[in-house]
Amino acid sequence: MTGRSAVEQPEEQRELFALVDELAREELEPRAARFEEDGQFPEALVRLLGKQGLMSLPFPERWGGGGQSYTVYLKVIERLAGSWLAVAESVHLQVLACHGLARFGTDELRSELLPRMLSGELLAANCMSEPEAGSDLGAMSTKAVAEDGHHVISGTKAWVSHAGVADVYNVYCRTGGSALSGLSCFLVDADSEGLRPLAHERKMGVRSLPTAQIAFDGVRVPDQRMIGRRNRGMLVAAHVFDHGRLGISACAVGLAQAALDHAAAYAKERTQFGKPIISFQGLSFLLADMATQIAAARALLYSVAALKDQGKPISAEAAKCKLFATDTAMRVTTDAVQVLGGYGYTQDFPVERWMREAKLLQILEGTNQIQRIAIAQSL
Amino acid sequence: MTGRSAVEQPEEQRELFALVDELAREELEPRAARFEEDGQFPEALVRLLGKQGLMSLPFPERWGGGGQSYTVYLKVIERLAGSWLAVAESVHLQVLACHGLARFGTDELRSELLPRMLSGELLAANCMSEPEAGSDLGAMSTKAVAEDGHHVISGTKAWVSHAGVADVYNVYCRTGGSALSGLSCFLVDADSEGLRPLAHERKMGVRSLPTAQIAFDGVRVPDQRMIGRRNRGMLVAAHVFDHGRLGISACAVGLAQAALDHAAAYAKERTQFGKPIISFQGLSFLLADMATQIAAARALLYSVAALKDQGKPISAEAAKCKLFATDTAMRVTTDAVQVLGGYGYTQDFPVERWMREAKLLQILEGTNQIQRIAIAQSL
Amino acid sequence: MTGRSAVEQPEEQRELFALVDELAREELEPRAARFEEDGQFPEALVRLLGKQGLMSLPFPERWGGGGQSYTVYLKVIERLAGSWLAVAESVHLQVLACHGLARFGTDELRSELLPRMLSGELLAANCMSEPEAGSDLGAMSTKAVAEDGHHVISGTKAWVSHAGVADVYNVYCRTGGSALSGLSCFLVDADSEGLRPLAHERKMGVRSLPTAQIAFDGVRVPDQRMIGRRNRGMLVAAHVFDHGRLGISACAVGLAQAALDHAAAYAKERTQFGKPIISFQGLSFLLADMATQIAAARALLYSVAALKDQGKPISAEAAKCKLFATDTAMRVTTDAVQVLGGYGYTQDFPVERWMREAKLLQILEGTNQIQRIAIAQSL
Amino acid sequence: MTGRSAVEQPEEQRELFALVDELAREELEPRAARFEEDGQFPEALVRLLGKQGLMSLPFPERWGGGGQSYTVYLKVIERLAGSWLAVAESVHLQVLACHGLARFGTDELRSELLPRMLSGELLAANCMSEPEAGSDLGAMSTKAVAEDGHHVISGTKAWVSHAGVADVYNVYCRTGGSALSGLSCFLVDADSEGLRPLAHERKMGVRSLPTAQIAFDGVRVPDQRMIGRRNRGMLVAAHVFDHGRLGISACAVGLAQAALDHAAAYAKERTQFGKPIISFQGLSFLLADMATQIAAARALLYSVAALKDQGKPISAEAAKCKLFATDTAMRVTTDAVQVLGGYGYTQDFPVERWMREAKLLQILEGTNQIQRIAIAQSL
Repeated sequence: MTGRSAVEQPEEQRELFALVDELAREELEPRAARFEEDGQFPEALVRLLGKQGLMSLPFPERWGGGGQSYTVYLKVIERLAGSWLAVAESVHLQVLACHGLARFGTDELRSELLPRMLSGELLAANCMSEPEAGSDLGAMSTKAVAEDGHHVISGTKAWVSHAGVADVYNVYCRTGGSALSGLSCFLVDADSEGLRPLAHERKMGVRSLPTAQIAFDGVRVPDQRMIGRRNRGMLVAAHVFDHGRLGISACAVGLAQAALDHAAAYAKERTQFGKPIISFQGLSFLLADMATQIAAARALLYSVAALKDQGKPISAEAAKCKLFATDTAMRVTTDAVQVLGGYGYTQDFPVERWMREAKLLQILEGTNQIQRIAIAQSL
Repeated sequence: MTGRSAVEQPEEQRELFALVDELAREELEPRAARFEEDGQFPEALVRLLGKQGLMSLPFPERWGGGGQSYTVYLKVIERLAGSWLAVAESVHLQVLACHGLARFGTDELRSELLPRMLSGELLAANCMSEPEAGSDLGAMSTKAVAEDGHHVISGTKAWVSHAGVADVYNVYCRTGGSALSGLSCFLVDADSEGLRPLAHERKMGVRSLPTAQIAFDGVRVPDQRMIGRRNRGMLVAAHVFDHGRLGISACAVGLAQAALDHAAAYAKERTQFGKPIISFQGLSFLLADMATQIAAARALLYSVAALKDQGKPISAEAAKCKLFATDTAMRVTTDAVQVLGGYGYTQDFPVERWMREAKLLQILEGTNQIQRIAIAQSL
Repeated sequence: MTGRSAVEQPEEQRELFALVDELAREELEPRAARFEEDGQFPEALVRLLGKQGLMSLPFPERWGGGGQSYTVYLKVIERLAGSWLAVAESVHLQVLACHGLARFGTDELRSELLPRMLSGELLAANCMSEPEAGSDLGAMSTKAVAEDGHHVISGTKAWVSHAGVADVYNVYCRTGGSALSGLSCFLVDADSEGLRPLAHERKMGVRSLPTAQIAFDGVRVPDQRMIGRRNRGMLVAAHVFDHGRLGISACAVGLAQAALDHAAAYAKERTQFGKPIISFQGLSFLLADMATQIAAARALLYSVAALKDQGKPISAEAAKCKLFATDTAMRVTTDAVQVLGGYGYTQDFPVERWMREAKLLQILEGTNQIQRIAIAQSL
Repeated sequence: MTGRSAVEQPEEQRELFALVDELAREELEPRAARFEEDGQFPEALVRLLGKQGLMSLPFPERWGGGGQSYTVYLKVIERLAGSWLAVAESVHLQVLACHGLARFGTDELRSELLPRMLSGELLAANCMSEPEAGSDLGAMSTKAVAEDGHHVISGTKAWVSHAGVADVYNVYCRTGGSALSGLSCFLVDADSEGLRPLAHERKMGVRSLPTAQIAFDGVRVPDQRMIGRRNRGMLVAAHVFDHGRLGISACAVGLAQAALDHAAAYAKERTQFGKPIISFQGLSFLLADMATQIAAARALLYSVAALKDQGKPISAEAAKCKLFATDTAMRVTTDAVQVLGGYGYTQDFPVERWMREAKLLQILEGTNQIQRIAIAQSL
């Protein structure tokens, strides 16, 4: 798609990448700045991407999936993120919210809902964190109590992306025991009685992607909506985490590359002291360092994607990927603003937005501190 | 004022610092978030600080100055920046805009205008950069042509802070020769015919401080308003640069300290895994590194301020200071958001704003690349 | 070989890697510390590796090569470097010294010499740098003057590895023109009259690999020994540079991994405050960062190796690789010493040696400043 | 002494600094390389510095001290370290070993021994760490058992500098209780029966300063030799730690400055591509960053020294200082080797030695991890 990757693209994927590239340039780029400023979710656009098949890519064809490798899927996310991070994130969140059902759901539930989720007809979301339990899932206090063929959910979930726009929510609840061994996951309809998204978080960036707490006030969900086994919800969550790390990494690489491209183009055009500023090593070495970090992040990402596509365990490697790629995105976007100087600090250029967006990636899907814990445990 | 500085505070300054502390807590802090969001200049507040004497601190008493050392003045700026960067910047810009007149102006002009500028009755600004000549003053194209006891100024200045709210502008123009040896500085009334501030820059942060281009369309200014000698404007500019570096450094130190204080307080209160998160070395070492960087930046700042107060040349040392302090502020504020995790990314806490503000400091008053050139030349 | 790489190892390579692993553990590791301390070249061992086929790996089978991909070859270098950098370097230098002949030599010269070089029967070296022209090949002053079917070489080459132990030298000389367009390359026998290695450089590390200046005092070499076309020696050099960057990167990755492995093992065994020190996040996060950097460096290396194996141009990508991998090795080995504390600073553990060795990699085959120039030019 | 410090030097200290400068240039510099290579302690030179009064500087005149501020003393250490780190360290170790006696010793013991220690007639050392208890003093196992007016000491101390050359040792032993509340300090003669220095550690650098374990096999020491109160040895140790951090910081600043000076001088002389290499921003920005870090480290050091001279508590501030200054020294010396390229990697220039020496400073007197714990506790 970009000629930047070391991995050869098979003939058959070119069409897909051409489509994605066109969508990114024609549908995403012209709208990003405005929607971000207004904090408005581009619902029609996101559903369009679903219809085009982008949310189904890494799932088996028998469930309506695209039958593509994770490598291919992540390249699509990378490309979208370079044009509009919130939309790439939205596609990625949808894929994440389908993973639990695809892997752990009953055949019946899968048949009923998965094709509609993969096509974006039903937007989905994950509800894991709570206001008092961010990274500490063992402290989860939202409860699901069994009651005549249903579970009744009470509690408050926090940091739910797609909040208020999703049609279904994967809700992680305490059904027993303590710490991590008593959690279960339920797929809950958004229009269930007692389910209420609270006010949107006012975020520094990625403002067009709605994030909010969701209150569950005695929400009844049929037992058939349980995903995975009772009290084994952590297996579902862990599965989601691994994929989450890869998706965020792809977002980070795409964002960083966009920032480098913009900064390098500016540095070739802008003249000071009678020369394009890229001819000063003070700037060109900075750009070279940015390019180097991005190349390393991308290579790491696709090496882990290859592991994933081979069916290997990837938890620790995906954690390294998430840590490295998002730190790279933060550094590169901050330096890209610097390359543009005063202009970079204004909203007339996208680099200031990218810098604000990059910060989210260091926090989302497990802060980079949490990633280090996972990496250290693997040593 | 904060107990953080290694330098003992003489008895006589305590009153000043107590006043500044009170103003910061009672007048600045409650207003900052709102004015920043609205992009509204707190003119009444800034003029109040002028009346309280904060803009006159480092100037001789014979011209209405406070007769304080630069060390004392910078501590005041540091304290203000911890509460509201734009206001600290505004005071600092006013002081910078007075430096030229104070040092190079004629006695007549000084008597006429300096006391009114030092008291904030007249807000002032510097017009140096141009759209096509950011750091490269030698490429300046705004012209001042002599004509019967006046000069007529034509051109466009860029990145003018206090644009539209200032009463007088220091305008650097080409009066002859080429490169740096043909520039002169004029103090121009804001209501001069032909002087017109253009639309405000839409900045990532520090939005309550107006920044804009100013168009000069045949603006007539009496010859008596020339500051310094004809074609020797660079001497005035260089004088301003040195002081500008120190003021920005004080802003950076104050901003970084505020971010550390906020992050440390949060880390003591927030619990995860059953303990305050500050009890995890993964976070406490990050905070320790932040504290260390700030301590070094502050020590460097006041060691250079001491040089300045001894009348020593400080250009290279002030450049080191600006480079180190602002890079520290960028890193520390970015990490402070990280300490707060998702909460840090929302506008419910000030750290995201501080991170956006820190970026400006790496660019303003000579990008950190320009500082490195100045430092390298001193080796 | 280590289970660390994301790339699947085909069945047929396992035997090779098992052999290399055995050689590394049984022949290299037990000797490294002693030979390094004595500054003695392990000639017998290096020739043994040649006999085992390790120097011929990436060359076509028709010339006596191993017919392996560069990917496989670099994995071998990585593994050797984890046991003894100087020996890995020695193999890599031999391969580099064969590249010119293999690609640009005449069939006759290839038939005569290449098989003996690939088997390590003839040790080879490259002579490029000069005392006054390190990275600046255009300033090369060693001359080769044509004279009755020979060229007569006069000048002094610097930083020649394998100096004094090589049987043949690739010597880059000025044969005409100026700057980079008048250079030619000759393959010169070590026992030629007038060729004289000077005293070995006393290096901080990698002391068992001899490095010296070589004086050429009217050395006659037959015209048939010219490699590539007259005055087109830069094509040969550039070919060597690209491969040199990859080999050094593999050395850096292997060295860094050895340091991490050692540090992690120590951190699990060493107890302080009643717990293994790895259980303190202050250390485990450091180890996690080391592991992450290494994973990124390795992924980058093998992504570029894959490009090379596909026949793509790799100059800029290999430069990124060299820059990133060697900076990683420097940082990781320095931190590994830190993990071991006082013990790490003693010669009772290998980490202090690895730290000294890592520094060479940032300098060799084009300093990391030169790499940045190459990267910047590609933007 | 160097013109680099922001703090004015009073008239009366010029003579001292001139003397130190002369000693450094004429006595230290010519010998450093040779003694380091041979691992030979320059005993005569160290005792000469004692006679010249350098070990007594920060002690009161009534005990034979120089009555100078800690600021002055640290400037002397900084200057010495720029010429020969081991000798600066040796003076600093002697001062540290006198601090316990000076502050906590009985008048009788002080009269008997302190003047002879301050003049360097008696070389002294501290024995704190043990092989199994590096930073964890609470795990100390060396015992001192009371027995008819004496204590009998048994155990093994590790990482003792001045081992084998000291005349007296401050030995920290367990006399009761557990953890940190049962330690006592004794001043033990080196020729006591049962006291035996073991083989010298073979260190990566600072090899002319002997470091070894010392075995105590039933060593009898009169009760009068106890320093401070029984079981209150931690008070003595903590006092030593604070001063230790400052001394190491001064060593780090001096070492880093020497490396920068050398690198900058080289960069002005060495030409490549037809220009001195300092004229390339790729190098000059690196040098500018080095200069900036050093300036910050020095300013931090002397701001904490000023606190100390005012009698303020300095533990946390001194920890910041040690962390920042030694990390700076490590980075700057590593980069200085880079500036010299291949030449920097040889023993023909001192920068490779400085890089090896810098690493010790990150470990000595509490690793930089331990410093972060101290800093975090102060937040």
